Amino acid sequence: MDDIEAIKQLKARYFRTLDTKDWDGMRRVFTDEATVDTSGSGGPVITGADEFIAFVRETLGDRSTVHIGHMPEIELTSESTATGIWSMQDLVQWPDGRDLRGYGHYHETYEKTDGVWRIASSRLTRLRMDIRPADAAGAS
Amino acid sequence: MDDIEAIKQLKARYFRTLDTKDWDGMRRVFTDEATVDTSGSGGPVITGADEFIAFVRETLGDRSTVHIGHMPEIELTSESTATGIWSMQDLVQWPDGRDLRGYGHYHETYEKTDGVWRIASSRLTRLRMDIRPADAAGAS
Amino acid sequence: MDDIEAIKQLKARYFRTLDTKDWDGMRRVFTDEATVDTSGSGGPVITGADEFIAFVRETLGDRSTVHIGHMPEIELTSESTATGIWSMQDLVQWPDGRDLRGYGHYHETYEKTDGVWRIASSRLTRLRMDIRPADAAGAS
Repeated sequence: MDDIEAIKQLKARYFRTLDTKDWDGMRRVFTDEATVDTSGSGGPVITGADEFIAFVRETLGDRSTVHIGHMPEIELTSESTATGIWSMQDLVQWPDGRDLRGYGHYHETYEKTDGVWRIASSRLTRLRMDIRPADAAGAS
Repeated sequence: MDDIEAIKQLKARYFRTLDTKDWDGMRRVFTDEATVDTSGSGGPVITGADEFIAFVRETLGDRSTVHIGHMPEIELTSESTATGIWSMQDLVQWPDGRDLRGYGHYHETYEKTDGVWRIASSRLTRLRMDIRPADAAGAS
Repeated sequence: MDDIEAIKQLKARYFRTLDTKDWDGMRRVFTDEATVDTSGSGGPVITGADEFIAFVRETLGDRSTVHIGHMPEIELTSESTATGIWSMQDLVQWPDGRDLRGYGHYHETYEKTDGVWRIASSRLTRLRMDIRPADAAGAS
């Protein structure tokens, strides 16, 4: 598998482990010192993978979430570093039953250590965020 | 085209032929003995590509459907076999006008025969399913 | 980066520059003589990249838009030409606050000149288009 494909699958695991609440799997997606800027969603800038996983568990752990990535623009900047932009959308059920539905872009950097790519930094910018009543019946 | 890209395009054809109701094209996506587990959508486990196409024609043939795949995690397990996980979303218009809108993952296996990749098995798990009133005006 | 990956990233830039209103960046995605058939959205067939950018600025420039591409089927037809089909969805906020939400496929051709791939033609077909009241509160 080439490096660009490996980075695409890395980010795929990020999304899948987030929405299936596989916190151990999600932790392995990041470098130890990863920084994640969630200000595009109204959140903080967080340093450290452990700290970020703790934040996500606290804020999203008991909610139904769907996060989807689209159309990665991955650029290899050295043998062990890369940058990427992903279009994204998310659907988060709030405790009161309403849905947050958002769209935007992740702007990221990646690092390869011991043959494994990990996310070193991630910053989310938004195109649009809507809050709306929950879709009727059958949410599961 | 490499094997991973070929499998991505195989699954792209699955989605496109399904939503454009190109049943002959959709049939060619599967091995003869393919198994498809639709229990994630409340349906049966079906063995045989002809049987699955017949099932889809019966249940979705006269409905507006949109099925979309995201972020494939394809792993080659031999020269002629592979596994894959796809994030997915679907939008199905019910006979009474309401919409089913769902999200989940396909867990699949692929086989290569005579140089052509086909889907050998597919199982859908769900993150979320909603039923809601049809979007107003202009569905087409 | 191979040609198929380069064309995927070309189309990714199309979507990103469109939704972030980066008109100069969007112009560079197209050949000078590109043709774009927007009849699937009720629009005209336009010849010329400058003419198309002018049309998009006029019709979408002051609206919140989200356009997303999925599951490209890219086929190289020579060293400098290719075809592609993309699943797509779009979300366009109308001046009166309502949302257009659509799904379909782009059918495209690409040309490579001086080592750079560009979109030479694009035609949109639709699976479905809905118009609905704006999502409540917080559109941004």
